[in-house]
Formats: sequence, C-alpha cells, structure tokens
Amino acid sequence: MNTLKLNQLLEKYQWKIKRLGPQNEKVVEIRSILHNTLNSVERRFVTEGMWAHHKLRMTDIHIEYCLFCPEMMYSNEAIELVEAFMNSTDDIYVVSPKTFQRLSDRDDPDGFISVGILPVYHKEDLGIRDDAVIVILDGLESPGNIGTILRSCDGAGVDAVIICNPKARVNNPKLIKASMGAVFTVPIVYFEHPSECITWLKNHRFHIYLADSEARSFYGNRVYGGNTALVLGSERYGISQEWYNHPVQTLTIPMSGSCDSLNVGVAASILTYEICLRKKALGGDEYENKL
Amino acid sequence: MNTLKLNQLLEKYQWKIKRLGPQNEKVVEIRSILHNTLNSVERRFVTEGMWAHHKLRMTDIHIEYCLFCPEMMYSNEAIELVEAFMNSTDDIYVVSPKTFQRLSDRDDPDGFISVGILPVYHKEDLGIRDDAVIVILDGLESPGNIGTILRSCDGAGVDAVIICNPKARVNNPKLIKASMGAVFTVPIVYFEHPSECITWLKNHRFHIYLADSEARSFYGNRVYGGNTALVLGSERYGISQEWYNHPVQTLTIPMSGSCDSLNVGVAASILTYEICLRKKALGGDEYENKL
Repeated sequence: MNTLKLNQLLEKYQWKIKRLGPQNEKVVEIRSILHNTLNSVERRFVTEGMWAHHKLRMTDIHIEYCLFCPEMMYSNEAIELVEAFMNSTDDIYVVSPKTFQRLSDRDDPDGFISVGILPVYHKEDLGIRDDAVIVILDGLESPGNIGTILRSCDGAGVDAVIICNPKARVNNPKLIKASMGAVFTVPIVYFEHPSECITWLKNHRFHIYLADSEARSFYGNRVYGGNTALVLGSERYGISQEWYNHPVQTLTIPMSGSCDSLNVGVAASILTYEICLRKKALGGDEYENKL
Repeated sequence: MNTLKLNQLLEKYQWKIKRLGPQNEKVVEIRSILHNTLNSVERRFVTEGMWAHHKLRMTDIHIEYCLFCPEMMYSNEAIELVEAFMNSTDDIYVVSPKTFQRLSDRDDPDGFISVGILPVYHKEDLGIRDDAVIVILDGLESPGNIGTILRSCDGAGVDAVIICNPKARVNNPKLIKASMGAVFTVPIVYFEHPSECITWLKNHRFHIYLADSEARSFYGNRVYGGNTALVLGSERYGISQEWYNHPVQTLTIPMSGSCDSLNVGVAASILTYEICLRKKALGGDEYENKL
C-alpha cells in the first residue's frame, strides 16, 4: 500500500480528524447499532468495508460520521475512499486498531466504518401509477429474510415495499447485509396495523394477492393487471387474519415433495419476479430491452 | 407432562438404555458432527427436536443411535417419539441435562437427539427419463444456500441435485436446517470435477443451462424441452469456466435496480420453478391437479 499517500492524507486533513477512545459516545453508538440495542434512532445504520461504501456513495444517503483506523487500511482503494469521505462528511474520526477491532464484523477488517441515516419515505410520496407493484411484509421477523426480499424487489423492479406490523428494524446489520444495499434504494413505507394498509391499498385500487402455502390457487399462468399488491406473512404465524376479511386472492406455489412450504424470502422472490415479468410483458418489452 | 408414562417407558426399556457420560465417544462424535469437524464419515448427521424427528420417520433413513435426557422432555409427543425410536433403533442412550445442553443447538431443547446416515445415490440409479430436470451446484460454499436450494428443488419436483466441485458437506447442520428435511428426500449425486459431470450430462442428452447474471439471455418465455440441467455457480467465483467450453445456453434473471445479482439460493429457486412449471405445463396439468 502507498503509506506515503496515507500519511499525506492524514496530514492534509489533520485539522479535521479527531481521535476517539474506546469509551467515546460515537464508539458506543456504533456498538449499539451493531448489536441492535439502539432504540432511539432506528434509522441510523452502520456500514463497513469498501464494497458497501462504494455502493453507498452511489446513493443520496446522508453519512453522519466516519471512523477509520490508518494502521488497518491495506489498499489504495481504501485511501481513495477515505479521501472522498473527507470531502463529503463533516465528522471524521480516527480510532486505534484495538477499538476498531471491537467494532468490526470481519475477520479481515479494512479499517473503515461509517454511520448513515436511512431515508424516510411517506406513502404520499410513492406516486402510484396504474400498474404499480408493491410487496407487503406483514410481521416478518427475520432480518435476513427481509433483506433477501428487498434485494429481489430491487431486482424485479417493484415500486415500493410496505412493512406492516413491523418486528425487525431495517437498520439491523443482518438485514442490510442480506439486502446487498437494496435497503438504500427500494422505497420502504410503514404501516403499524394491517387495517391501515388495507384501507390505503383499497383507496389506490390495488388488487391484493396473499402468498398462502395452504391455499389452492396456483400462482402461474395468471394475468396481473392494474395496481398489484403481494402480501407475505410472518415466518411463524403467516399472514394476519384481517387480510382475509377483504376481497383478496391467494397465490400458492406448488410443493411437489416432502416440504410444506418454501422459505418466505424464496417464495416472495419467486412470486415477485413472476408478477413483475408478467406485468412488464403486458406493458412492453422493457425487460428484454434491458438485457 | 405425563411423568408416570415416561417412568413406565424408562422401566420397560431399562434393559436397552445405556447411560453415557460427557466424555463418551458417542457424545464426542455428535459434537464433531455439529461443529463440522468430522472428516471420516461425512454421511453421518445429527437431528434434534420433535419436528425434525417426525420428518425423519417419514423416510427410510437409517438411525444409528438416539440420545435422550428424561429431565428435559416436556411433552407427551416427546415420550411417544422416544417410544417409537425404542422400537426401531438398536442403540438408545440416556445423558444428563448438562451433557445434553452441551450438544443442543437450542434455547429450549426438548431432550432428544439422534444420529442417522444420509442415503447414498449413484448416478446409475437416477433412472433418467426424457423430461428430467436436474439442478447442478458447482462449487457452492454456503451450507445455508445449498439447503435452501434443496428445499426449493424438493418443492419444484426436480429429479436430482448434482453437487460437483463440492465445498460443503451435506451433513452440515446449517445445510440440514435450511433444507427443512429436503436433504433426506432429494436424490443427491456427486461429481468431483465439472468435466465428469458434463460428460455424463451429454451422454444422457441433457440441455445445459447456466445461470449467469452477466449474460444477456432472459430466462422467461422459453420452452425447456427434453432433459434439462440447470447449473448454479459458486457464490464467489460463479460457474467454472469449463462449462462454457461446451454447447450450453445461459439464463439471466433481469436486475432492474441497484443490485447486480440475486442471492444464489433465490436465483436457483426462481429458475428451477420456472423450468419445472414450463415442463409440467408442456407435459400436462400435473401441477394444477395437485393443488
């Protein structure tokens, strides 16, 4: 690595860089976010590593502060990244290898961590058109599943994800990791209770489909016209009963073998891609043109 | 719980039940399998809990021995299960709560663990017809991903899974858990090198499709006729170069957003369901009739 370049950088921004000890409130805050024990600011999240920071830089997400450990930085790429953040972020801190190690989730940390604020979307901002696809997560508990679904929703091109009856925080490090950054880009809107969500969907003339492994309604060979909402239920309890009191349709993925159902992240992905591809096929050759 | 019934059971099978201490070789073996450090017998696996044991009893899998801890059994269901295994398994052992706790993967263990032998399938036994679907995992590393794919393959009704260039053991507890028991029922065949696998597929007139996120060939709206092989590559390195030296087709899942690709377990599931549904649609109404 170019140690000279790193030293020059440290010298150039000397006026800006503060040194933090292991008991500093920023260090404590990062540990709280990583251990998912921070109650006050749910939208604050931690990013570690070059790949994730490059991804982050492609978004408008606000970075509150960065921590780095010069002794642990082993690539020129890392130095360039630190320099970029020096210019765009007000609060830059240096910590010791020992302190950094306690914050890092990695076997081989590359010496750079930052804390950002996840964007907030309001349902009024979604700008629902006539052929929107929205995926609704009702009471899902596993951060890994929610992250996986966000990644698939990003890929399939859904317009938004609604989390109702929330049981996991979107700033959970496992969720962020599983989403591969999709949590930064897919609009996420919250409804506390399914009833509020159902009312909103009805007002926007959504066709509501419930993913239900115990139903008898094959998901394939269908036309998904108009605004389409796909609802996935909790890993343990399924979809809240309330949804079934409204005009909805169920979608079942056939299970040919010994298992009763698929993992909810997998089921969500299969159904989301099916719906989005069918709608795009109805609406033109958008997908094929992209390939 | 019916303590009387448990005591009667223990008395009835007194002649058969042996007590094991924490240093016994069976206890050590279970720990080795759980920590994935057992090299000698890769096919030996550990099952814990009522649900998994019920699932296991629906298969022909051979159970080598069972361990239980009477003090930890809290349901009548557990007693019935132990009785069933008393009759069908030669080696039954009792351990102390402390020893059991050290073997258990659970916060709330139900006092029953067994060691079984995963079945072995040979490629000669697969009985390939004219419209078989085989999913090939080339160098996949994550036990969770492999387990997820086995579960989806079970659901979609694939004929077999081939593991070539193996990097994870199918007796890995994470793999078994993610598979939800599909590892007990889906035929799994091994090829050390992709070249052997390719030769075998060619000899059986398979059409080979490679899941490749960097290709430009949309997976939808295709006809998958004849014997169909879907190849998934390693999480880090993708599909081995060797596959591309043969007449193959690539399949790409469109990525509309900020992510470059889907999780390999999710991608495998989407493609496997698409292929199986298209083939079943060609071959009749098998799926819809099952629903």
